[in-house]
Amino acid sequence: MSAGWFRRRFLPGGLLSAPGPSRPRASPVPYRRPRFLRGSGSGPGPADASRRPDARPVRSPARGRALPWNAGYAEIINAEKSEFNEDQASCGKLCIRRCEFGAEEDQEWLTLCPEEFLTGHYWALFDGHGGPAAAILAANTLHSCLRRQLEAVVEGMVAAQPPMHLSGHCICPSDPQFVEEKGIRAEDLVIGALESAFQECDEVIGRELEASGQVGGCTALVAVSLQGKLYVANAGDSRAILVRRDEVRPLSSEFTPETERQRIQQLAFVYPELLAGEFTRLEFPRRLKGDDLGQKVLFRDHHMSGWGYKCVEKSDLKYPLIHGQGRQARLLGTLAVSRGLGDHQLRVLDTDIQLKPFLLSVPQVTVLDVDQLELQEEDVVVMATDGLWDVLSNEQVARLVRSFLPGNREDPHSHGQGSSGH
Amino acid sequence: MSAGWFRRRFLPGGLLSAPGPSRPRASPVPYRRPRFLRGSGSGPGPADASRRPDARPVRSPARGRALPWNAGYAEIINAEKSEFNEDQASCGKLCIRRCEFGAEEDQEWLTLCPEEFLTGHYWALFDGHGGPAAAILAANTLHSCLRRQLEAVVEGMVAAQPPMHLSGHCICPSDPQFVEEKGIRAEDLVIGALESAFQECDEVIGRELEASGQVGGCTALVAVSLQGKLYVANAGDSRAILVRRDEVRPLSSEFTPETERQRIQQLAFVYPELLAGEFTRLEFPRRLKGDDLGQKVLFRDHHMSGWGYKCVEKSDLKYPLIHGQGRQARLLGTLAVSRGLGDHQLRVLDTDIQLKPFLLSVPQVTVLDVDQLELQEEDVVVMATDGLWDVLSNEQVARLVRSFLPGNREDPHSHGQGSSGH
Repeated sequence: MSAGWFRRRFLPGGLLSAPGPSRPRASPVPYRRPRFLRGSGSGPGPADASRRPDARPVRSPARGRALPWNAGYAEIINAEKSEFNEDQASCGKLCIRRCEFGAEEDQEWLTLCPEEFLTGHYWALFDGHGGPAAAILAANTLHSCLRRQLEAVVEGMVAAQPPMHLSGHCICPSDPQFVEEKGIRAEDLVIGALESAFQECDEVIGRELEASGQVGGCTALVAVSLQGKLYVANAGDSRAILVRRDEVRPLSSEFTPETERQRIQQLAFVYPELLAGEFTRLEFPRRLKGDDLGQKVLFRDHHMSGWGYKCVEKSDLKYPLIHGQGRQARLLGTLAVSRGLGDHQLRVLDTDIQLKPFLLSVPQVTVLDVDQLELQEEDVVVMATDGLWDVLSNEQVARLVRSFLPGNREDPHSHGQGSSGH
Repeated sequence: MSAGWFRRRFLPGGLLSAPGPSRPRASPVPYRRPRFLRGSGSGPGPADASRRPDARPVRSPARGRALPWNAGYAEIINAEKSEFNEDQASCGKLCIRRCEFGAEEDQEWLTLCPEEFLTGHYWALFDGHGGPAAAILAANTLHSCLRRQLEAVVEGMVAAQPPMHLSGHCICPSDPQFVEEKGIRAEDLVIGALESAFQECDEVIGRELEASGQVGGCTALVAVSLQGKLYVANAGDSRAILVRRDEVRPLSSEFTPETERQRIQQLAFVYPELLAGEFTRLEFPRRLKGDDLGQKVLFRDHHMSGWGYKCVEKSDLKYPLIHGQGRQARLLGTLAVSRGLGDHQLRVLDTDIQLKPFLLSVPQVTVLDVDQLELQEEDVVVMATDGLWDVLSNEQVARLVRSFLPGNREDPHSHGQGSSGH
């Protein structure tokens, strides 16, 4: 990404803001459910005709179709508000080949050396909005981006310490010492690969949506098991927790206009033109009105963790950059999440004000040392979209998980990850 | 602060970058030691003629001159590298008057109503660099800025809940509910006042240094005891800890080019002109050289917590925006801290590249509920500049403090805060 990219892309007069020449349109992304649900008789209609009228159909993989690590999966289609589910999921084995340094990657090599060098497992949840297309593209694409990014650094990952030069060649005799002093470990390369994979996937989604004339975005929550560690990468408001016998450990934090207020206000401070004079970047306890003019009211700006009072001016009456509280908080009155994939064309209704400059596609990554933690078979990772966390706390979910574990050890459907549509 | 301020101040063509008309120069800030050291016989010369030749003179307030809360203080002048100490300190009672809403603050009112409305205590350490002037100005000024900022919001601080309008007048019936939903408490107003006071003080220092033709900057570590809470505000690499019988609790975190790498790289990404083509914003394990060209080496950019490999181009050979490791880490090859006061004129040697755009004057504030924690007389807060923390860990300092506490209960010199010059 070049340094001037942001300005060219988003600011007035930028090279990329003019519409390009019209190109033949690609066909739209076809709707689908996660691969592992196919064959489980879970079409968009009711899954079980005998269910109570007020019960929602819950879809799970067919019995006998095991997911990696005995993982389970359950979904409710969009709380039955619509026929299609904007959420997607994918999981599978992650096979990382070794690219010899200097050797060009080509089809012949792939054919001759099909064996993987390192294997891991991958589980992902995508909570779509504005249509299912972005979540479907993410479910189709992100694991390939991650595999590619990991293959690009795998030589460094398997060394005792990542070498300064990927070739292993030492140009300066104290190179290993420099790497040591920076504290760079193999897991930092996996974190870097996850960060780059999310960005690469976001670019792919941007191109695909533009080509097919579709819109939409999604959050992304990914868990990867690799080399004895569990990596959880999160961009959005989904959440992963680890439930153990005597501990509930959050494995991610949520990224919403509320939790990322200072970053978002800071960008609007640096580039006020992104608000096109229609929004105020300041936060107030509620939207201000004419009667507040001249009064001293509570406010926060980008540099403040605390609150102060300011004398209300006319420009403070504009719609706030971040408005509402908790689940209702919205960025530019439009979006409830501040990180994710897609949304390249998303604009504030009836304006040219873009959301994308305020969104990050890069995830936060947490690392769990599975070996060191001595994880047991009864320890469960729960990954779910906001639909679950809006109604149940971490502790409530943990109690539920623990309550049916002891008697159900043999049932793979009782383990693992769940996605709850919202 | 207006939205275009940053660009006008720091970017090419900005209105403020041209030198103003020459004004008569104010007299330079006179050198001094903290007020409470005066009369303790601690001039810049040796404090104790009988000391061992290799021992450094330690200066403390004279016996019988108690600081608030039985606080102690000790300093070593700049590790004897120079005659003058660039560190400063100040402490005292914080007297906050009540300004009736709508009443103009004037001298007559001050004379007629000298009684304070709310009192607290204030302790501050300033670690200067590039000369003692900024630290002296901060020691002279910051408490006044803080008093002013607190007086501006004190009506809100003493209410059961800060009112939406400082006047207490309710324009919308559910205003208290909006404040409640945002979770705004009295302590948020103190945090906001500390944040604003640091910024105000930074502006005062900028004006004073420019007027007197002096230079320099300083870090600031402030502790304020108010309404049963202890607030610790930190901008720089000083540190405060709470030492209890069975616990050592950090009360601040350090802000250095290393800890604030992503914020600093992000600014250079958004405004590459701040680097004037002389620096690279990317981080590498060491500075790259010609032999690295074309090699894939470890690197990190602003959006990365992890590490990746990139193919070295010519522009990567430039001097790094942040260079060195640990104590040696420098911003633009010049400064070891990334937050503080002053440095308005600081430039990279022999260039026009400014440091100030990368520095924040706003502190991080932590709050300790003194009542709830049931603090005992033997619990000690230690505040010190990096000179102490470079040679002793939190645990080592805690052991030292605990070792002389039980037998020295009556000696006020054994309690409280210490400043260690570096």
